Amino acid sequence: MTPGNESRVTVACVQMCPEVGAKVRNVARSIELIEQAHARGANLIVLPELCNSGYVFESREEAFALSEALADGDTIGQWSALAARLDLTLVAGYAERDGDSLYNSAAVIGPGGVLGGYRKMHLWGDEQLFFEPGNLGMPVFHTPFGRLACAICYDIWFPEVFRMAAARGADILCVPTNWVPMPAQPAELPAMANLLAMGGAHSNGLFVAAADRVGVEREQPFLGRSLIVDSQGWPVAGPASPSDEEILLASVNLADARRHRQLNAFNHVLRDRRPDIY
Amino acid sequence: MTPGNESRVTVACVQMCPEVGAKVRNVARSIELIEQAHARGANLIVLPELCNSGYVFESREEAFALSEALADGDTIGQWSALAARLDLTLVAGYAERDGDSLYNSAAVIGPGGVLGGYRKMHLWGDEQLFFEPGNLGMPVFHTPFGRLACAICYDIWFPEVFRMAAARGADILCVPTNWVPMPAQPAELPAMANLLAMGGAHSNGLFVAAADRVGVEREQPFLGRSLIVDSQGWPVAGPASPSDEEILLASVNLADARRHRQLNAFNHVLRDRRPDIY
Repeated sequence: MTPGNESRVTVACVQMCPEVGAKVRNVARSIELIEQAHARGANLIVLPELCNSGYVFESREEAFALSEALADGDTIGQWSALAARLDLTLVAGYAERDGDSLYNSAAVIGPGGVLGGYRKMHLWGDEQLFFEPGNLGMPVFHTPFGRLACAICYDIWFPEVFRMAAARGADILCVPTNWVPMPAQPAELPAMANLLAMGGAHSNGLFVAAADRVGVEREQPFLGRSLIVDSQGWPVAGPASPSDEEILLASVNLADARRHRQLNAFNHVLRDRRPDIY
Repeated sequence: MTPGNESRVTVACVQMCPEVGAKVRNVARSIELIEQAHARGANLIVLPELCNSGYVFESREEAFALSEALADGDTIGQWSALAARLDLTLVAGYAERDGDSLYNSAAVIGPGGVLGGYRKMHLWGDEQLFFEPGNLGMPVFHTPFGRLACAICYDIWFPEVFRMAAARGADILCVPTNWVPMPAQPAELPAMANLLAMGGAHSNGLFVAAADRVGVEREQPFLGRSLIVDSQGWPVAGPASPSDEEILLASVNLADARRHRQLNAFNHVLRDRRPDIY
C-alpha cells in the first residue's frame, strides 16, 4: 500500500432539486444523478435530505404518505439495487416510517445492501410538527474505505455532532441537507452552513461531505452551496451553485482524518479536550 | 430604556506587537493603546494573550521571571489604576504566577478593581513546557453592561468552550490570543481562527471579541486578524491587519445575545441540544 493512499475514495455530493410530493420523479432523478456520479468515478455518493419526498410538507398526512420503512421501502429498494449494480456506497435522505412514527432520516447503503440508518437529532422549524426527534444516536458505519457517520442539516449547528462522530472513530461525516438562506448572511463571506462544516471538520479532523438541494418549494428557497471539506477544514470541492443541480467530486484519502488529528508533538484535536472541566 | 439598547457597550480589541522580555515597554505600550481606545469611546477593552511578557519563551525560567501574581502584580496594578481612572473594563493576557506554578492567564479588571481571572485550558505546543493547564474552569463575570467570559487562543479550537460560556449565561467571549498562521490556509477564505470565532458565536448566540498580536518573535510570525463578531456570528469590526498594530471598535448591545438565541417558534440554539444522546 502506498502511504497516503490507504483509504482513497472518490466522494460525490449530488446537489439536486426534488419536488415535494413527486416521489416517482424524484427517485428517478436521483438514480440518473447517481449514475452520472458513478460514471465520473464516485465510490461514495451523498444525496440531499428528504430527496425522494421533497421538504415543505403541508401536513403530517402528506409527509406520512411519502414516507417508507428502511426495511422494505420502495425507494430504499431501488437505491439498494443500484448500489449493488454499480458497487458503490450511498447516503441519502428520505422520510422514514417506523410504525406510526416518522423520522427525517438518512439511509446508508453499501454494495451488499442496507448498512443502517441515521435519524436527524435536531429538528428545524415545522419539522417538529411532522417528525420525531432522532433516537438512534450517532451510529458509525465501517466500510472497506473508512468509517462514516451522518448528520442532517441543522444537526451541524451543534458542535457536539462532529465531536460524537470523531470520538467514535468516524473519518467522514456525510450530511444530507436542505439548508435555507440566512437573512443576515454577508455576500462576501462563506455561507454560515459552509463555515460550520469547515470549522467542525477542522476542530475534529473529520472530512465532511454535505449534499444540499436547490430550488424553491412552496415559496421556501434553498441554499445550494453543497461542499466537500477535507479533514483540515478546507473545501476540496465546491461550494456548488446556489441554484443549479450539480455533482461535486473529490478524490480523498480518508485515513488522513486519523493522521491529521495529531497536530504536533504535544497537541491532538481530540485528546486535548478537558473532560475534567467541561 | 430603549429596546435594543439595554446593554449597549463599545467594545475594543487592541491588536499590538509585544516584544518578548520587554515587560516595561510592553506595559507602557498597552497603556497608550488603552488610552487611545478609551478616547474613541471604548468601555470594554480586550488585549492580546501574554501581552506584557511576549510569547516565545526560551525557557521556563524566562517565563517565570516575566510572570506575576494576580493579587499584587505590577502590570495588574497599573492596568487596575488605569481602569479606575478611565472607568472601563479590561481583559488582558499575562503570564500568571501562583506560588511555583505558571499559568497563561487573562486578568479581568473593572473600574472598581480586579474582578478575577481565567487560566488557559488548552495549552498549545511549547506552552506545555512552561505553563500548567488552566484549573479555574470557565468563570463568568457579571458587569453592569452584561456577562463576560474568557478564552485564550487555542481554547477556541474546542467548541466546548463556547458552549460552557453560553450555557453559564455569558453574553460575550473575550479572547486574548496569539494566533499563528496556518500553512494550509487558502488566501481567499477567512483565517481558520476567524472562522472558528464566527461559527462558535453563531452556534451559541455569543458575541466574540478576539484581540490578537502581530509581529515576528524569535522567528515565529503571528496572524493578526483580530475581530469582533456579533451574536449571529458575523464580524462587526475587523478582521484587522495581518501586520500592524490596530484598534478595532464596535458599539454593540450585548442583550442581543440573549434575544437571538431563540431562532423561531420552535428552535433555540442552546435548548435544542440533545443531552439525552450526547
